[in-house]
Amino acid sequence: MKHNFGAGPCILPKEVFQEAAQAVIDFNNSGLSILEISHRSKDFEQVVIETEALVRELLAVPADYSVLFLQGGASQQFAMVPMNLLPEGGKAAYLDTGVWASKAAKEASKLGNVEIVASSSDKNYTYIPKVFTVPTDAAYFHYTSNNTIYGTEIFEAPKVNVPLVVDMSSDILSRTINVADYDLIYAGAQKNMGPAGVTLVIVKNDILGKSGRTIPAIFDYRSHALAGSMYNTPPVYSIYVSMLNLRWLKAKGGIEVIERENIIKARTLYDEIDRNPFFRGTANLEDRSRMNVSFVMDTAEQEAEFLELAKERGLIGIKGHRSVGGFRASIYNALTLSSINALVDAMKEFEERYK
Amino acid sequence: MKHNFGAGPCILPKEVFQEAAQAVIDFNNSGLSILEISHRSKDFEQVVIETEALVRELLAVPADYSVLFLQGGASQQFAMVPMNLLPEGGKAAYLDTGVWASKAAKEASKLGNVEIVASSSDKNYTYIPKVFTVPTDAAYFHYTSNNTIYGTEIFEAPKVNVPLVVDMSSDILSRTINVADYDLIYAGAQKNMGPAGVTLVIVKNDILGKSGRTIPAIFDYRSHALAGSMYNTPPVYSIYVSMLNLRWLKAKGGIEVIERENIIKARTLYDEIDRNPFFRGTANLEDRSRMNVSFVMDTAEQEAEFLELAKERGLIGIKGHRSVGGFRASIYNALTLSSINALVDAMKEFEERYK
Repeated sequence: MKHNFGAGPCILPKEVFQEAAQAVIDFNNSGLSILEISHRSKDFEQVVIETEALVRELLAVPADYSVLFLQGGASQQFAMVPMNLLPEGGKAAYLDTGVWASKAAKEASKLGNVEIVASSSDKNYTYIPKVFTVPTDAAYFHYTSNNTIYGTEIFEAPKVNVPLVVDMSSDILSRTINVADYDLIYAGAQKNMGPAGVTLVIVKNDILGKSGRTIPAIFDYRSHALAGSMYNTPPVYSIYVSMLNLRWLKAKGGIEVIERENIIKARTLYDEIDRNPFFRGTANLEDRSRMNVSFVMDTAEQEAEFLELAKERGLIGIKGHRSVGGFRASIYNALTLSSINALVDAMKEFEERYK
Repeated sequence: MKHNFGAGPCILPKEVFQEAAQAVIDFNNSGLSILEISHRSKDFEQVVIETEALVRELLAVPADYSVLFLQGGASQQFAMVPMNLLPEGGKAAYLDTGVWASKAAKEASKLGNVEIVASSSDKNYTYIPKVFTVPTDAAYFHYTSNNTIYGTEIFEAPKVNVPLVVDMSSDILSRTINVADYDLIYAGAQKNMGPAGVTLVIVKNDILGKSGRTIPAIFDYRSHALAGSMYNTPPVYSIYVSMLNLRWLKAKGGIEVIERENIIKARTLYDEIDRNPFFRGTANLEDRSRMNVSFVMDTAEQEAEFLELAKERGLIGIKGHRSVGGFRASIYNALTLSSINALVDAMKEFEERYK
């Protein structure tokens, strides 16, 4: 039994893998593989329609927003957001809460002026800056809602007077949000939505087409919105598996149900980190992420030993990112409470061994 | 028994589908799905390394070229090529041999000046223009080697005195080429390389970094070359299935062997088109494609009836593109001669019925 705590691409439900494998042999009893069908076939058009409908239903997306399935991950959105929203010579505001937030700002700065309204780089991104002012002449304000590497998360949409853009790659679909609070939400799929290879964009239609830039069609959100995510050949299989995963989430009871589970999972693990004298969390208490739990031990020897124990217990993917060290348990939607318990048991076992 | 003549995403070998399905359940006996593993895991890094090595071996790619696996298909390359190669205010030359060639030129024209050196739009792209002059001050010359919709193909690399860029989406890996004749080759994978979701780029390193433009990192070929196609999370599964397909091609004997088969397949079908009084080819004889065979009948009634007969015989995906009409049989690497024979048999059957 493996418990996959990997940071992404990450665990998806077993039943999704079963159906996803079957479709590679025979999709919808067509006698054809999902990998060899035309993206213009009725069967696949239905997949795109259902995937979009599931996103709209699960997140209660308002009608005046487009739901797009693109390629290139969040990294491509770092460039597409300013291409679409930042006029030549204009300014965009960014909150710097980690390496990815910082990369997003850096890419935007190639296309215009960027103002970093606040940064937590002074303490290795262990906290979320709470006090900052977004200039009213900014074309938009960008932030990263969950910082995968550091284990911090922003649950409330900041109140700002400019269009609000958020990178939700690692917490989309894990908790209820009010989509209307945002103007553009993007997320690489490979955490809670599906496998690598597809990117979700939810964008309010009326913010588009105002940057005055000449944008190649492939980078213009409007091309994709007009074509129902079929402007060019879409990543067929990644969208199909996302649909299966969204069906699973809906059958489970939707976002509210998974959010309750995620809260319990995170609390169970943080409680053990706070109780067990051999471990301590790295993120500021009030900014702790429900998706990525970062923690360390006192010495490199202990950490090496615990990593070995974890491996023996089938706990994989818990080594921390090099910029934080220690451990990072990514506990996305599909990771079960029993996997959390297996990790907690290993932590208790370590304590027993040395107390 | 289905015979899949679809234009793409298209047929791949049955054994590739079997292995591809197995990996969705259990990849490399890891107990994990290929869909849930980290792209930074050793196992997946090995996949990228092997996929690149297979492309290099099969196409004999010179050492001073990078082999990249990107996202966004050929449509994204329509923008990335001028971003990387066309200086501000510079000029690029394009050959217009069809809708896709024309779209490539249109996207480039958003970033600079484009000169169309010749076009076959006067005869609905049924032929390849042979006489044209590429201006010596062009930053590059771009053409499309196989025109999927019209069934025409350019087998010889044009001799030009500027960097040569080719969209080989629908004939890459189907015939021997001399990579050194080109400076940049790109191809959406979903014909002869693998499933949708990954794009192959083969680029001569020393043509990069000269456009003088500030390019977002995700659109700069150098970012991907430096990072071994791991600048950002790659389309894991699409690359994996491409590797399986390239292994199949290598085991078969490589490009020379598949090229011989492709020549026989195309000749078998064209011979029947030319012999059978009910059918006629649409493309200029000397420009006929080996990948996409376009043909028509005399009346819409005949075409409807043949389409029905084809369906009964398990021949799918042969309806022609709306801009040509009639039929298009896409006969990529994985389509077998026995599928060609099944189509030829149906054509003979139709002839018997009405002669």
